[in-house]
Amino acid sequence: MTSRYPLKVRAVEWVNGKVRWINTNLLPYEEVYEESADYERIARAIEAMEIRGAPAIGVAAALAIAATAFNSPANSVDQLRDVILKAIDRLRRTRPTAHNLFWALDRIKRVSLEQHLDLEEYRKAVVDEALRIYREDVETNIRIGEVGDRIIDDGDVILTHCNAGALATAAFGTALAIIRVAWYRGKRISVIATETRPVLQGARLTVWELVKEGIPVKLITDSMVGYVMYKGLVNKVIVGADRILRDGHVVNKIGTYVLAIAARRHGVPFYVAAPTSTFDLNSTVASIVIEERNPEEVRRILGKIPITVENVEVLNFSFDVTPPELVSGIVTERGIIEPPLNVNINRVIGGSKSA
Amino acid sequence: MTSRYPLKVRAVEWVNGKVRWINTNLLPYEEVYEESADYERIARAIEAMEIRGAPAIGVAAALAIAATAFNSPANSVDQLRDVILKAIDRLRRTRPTAHNLFWALDRIKRVSLEQHLDLEEYRKAVVDEALRIYREDVETNIRIGEVGDRIIDDGDVILTHCNAGALATAAFGTALAIIRVAWYRGKRISVIATETRPVLQGARLTVWELVKEGIPVKLITDSMVGYVMYKGLVNKVIVGADRILRDGHVVNKIGTYVLAIAARRHGVPFYVAAPTSTFDLNSTVASIVIEERNPEEVRRILGKIPITVENVEVLNFSFDVTPPELVSGIVTERGIIEPPLNVNINRVIGGSKSA
Repeated sequence: MTSRYPLKVRAVEWVNGKVRWINTNLLPYEEVYEESADYERIARAIEAMEIRGAPAIGVAAALAIAATAFNSPANSVDQLRDVILKAIDRLRRTRPTAHNLFWALDRIKRVSLEQHLDLEEYRKAVVDEALRIYREDVETNIRIGEVGDRIIDDGDVILTHCNAGALATAAFGTALAIIRVAWYRGKRISVIATETRPVLQGARLTVWELVKEGIPVKLITDSMVGYVMYKGLVNKVIVGADRILRDGHVVNKIGTYVLAIAARRHGVPFYVAAPTSTFDLNSTVASIVIEERNPEEVRRILGKIPITVENVEVLNFSFDVTPPELVSGIVTERGIIEPPLNVNINRVIGGSKSA
Repeated sequence: MTSRYPLKVRAVEWVNGKVRWINTNLLPYEEVYEESADYERIARAIEAMEIRGAPAIGVAAALAIAATAFNSPANSVDQLRDVILKAIDRLRRTRPTAHNLFWALDRIKRVSLEQHLDLEEYRKAVVDEALRIYREDVETNIRIGEVGDRIIDDGDVILTHCNAGALATAAFGTALAIIRVAWYRGKRISVIATETRPVLQGARLTVWELVKEGIPVKLITDSMVGYVMYKGLVNKVIVGADRILRDGHVVNKIGTYVLAIAARRHGVPFYVAAPTSTFDLNSTVASIVIEERNPEEVRRILGKIPITVENVEVLNFSFDVTPPELVSGIVTERGIIEPPLNVNINRVIGGSKSA
């Protein structure tokens, strides 16, 4: 893919009928790319967080189906459809919270269930839809960056949480897309990245990505988000999202909510950057599933050093929910959705095929 | 020492003319006790956080002077005074934020500068004052527990940050003293402990201490403090303090401030537990020093596993400042100081020898 900005980090790609991804669990220590055409392998890569970040999960799942279709020995439309629907079912069960996963699989499923008379035409239709999802992701992210650039002032210090970067998408990122575009356009900005326990995506991924890009970054622990604002060190907060509800509730990495509370107290604008594929217009706060992961993520650092008493009870919510009144705006590829979010989300996204 | 409650954990003790302490850096992996009569060794133990927690630092510094006086080969009052003043100077430079250190050293210094005609009488006066500080600490903590018990209801889930436990004092703790007394009095309570990056005192020390005591505890990452309140899982917050100013600003472990903001949003009472020796009536927010520690504490976990790109810039504030309007009350050995703190601190503490 070519683009009007450098794509220095490509987290998920389509290469010769296979899915290629960077194993984010090995960053920042090693830059290892994995390749597979096996949807089971890719499903496990999503479960193990080799591939993580809502848009990246959606793209990877779509490409996993594409690879399945592309390489299938099926010799009838019905046979291939069975395989594809089975693969879709398997991939749906990888992680419960990121909406983009279900959005991408639903797009493929729709194409899959259309009437196809010819096996090769069917195969091509599925692959094409997946590749569209993949290419759209990159284009969408660049648009988010361009749209969001107007919230960034020269000299801004932007605090971001977790990794809403190239490593959370096919390329370019969402929150970090805005930072990239501002940077490429010559604004002198810098970033404060939270380490993001338990899985440390901020320390491992965001820092790695920004250092690679040459954008100045300082790392903090999650506990410092209030005090850096108290000291006036932060001008904007920008985070990604795993799911955004019709009324403007934002589901994102654990820690986002308390960050939003602190930002509000200090009058620091709190923005969410996400493609429209992140919007879930059908669910409510009560109906969504907030993933709770293995307690060992908290008890040990990166599966290695134990940091507490063996087997102590743990709460390990992977995501939290930020209510709309704490959100200054949502930057999408179609523009910035401003408060009141419950009205404006409906206006911008409601009824469209993306949600 | 005997006491009306079990003292299962003794962090700092006086044993046969020496200071004995548990090396908290090795917890929860190993329970190792160190012993020394050398104030330089004890100063380094404070700097390296083998001994940490504001009251424990104060007690250890006092006992370090006692050990110096007790074992000194000086053969005149003047000679001994020189040694003691040098030791006091050295210990003052170990850590800048905890007020109890300066309070304890000032008490010893006062005794030290009184007129003493006899060497042995002088030696004894210094040792006695240090031992008073040590014994008062335990008695004070038990009183804090008894005074604070009235804020605890049967069934409460109490969130605490860092370690304001026995391991932060000579014994019994401050925030955890309240939890201990409530528990011993039969209230069915449980604790949520934040892990407290970067040094993980919550995961390593608070969990260890509570498990040893048999009090139910769940561990969370620092990023979860907002969401556990959002989910209604927390009834009270109780933290310790490193320094409390006349106007009610509370200096405590980094992360306390954002916790207080979240507690306020959710109407969860936010209490501070601290002996009156923690009150600094002379300083202002502008004049206190917030310690910034080695960036490697953030870049590596416990000095071992690197979690980010080598040498990336880091902010590592060890403490933060919580303004009085977020504090529901301060539990001291003399009673609970309620808002308005700027008025009531003056009334309870002002002009007394403890501050």
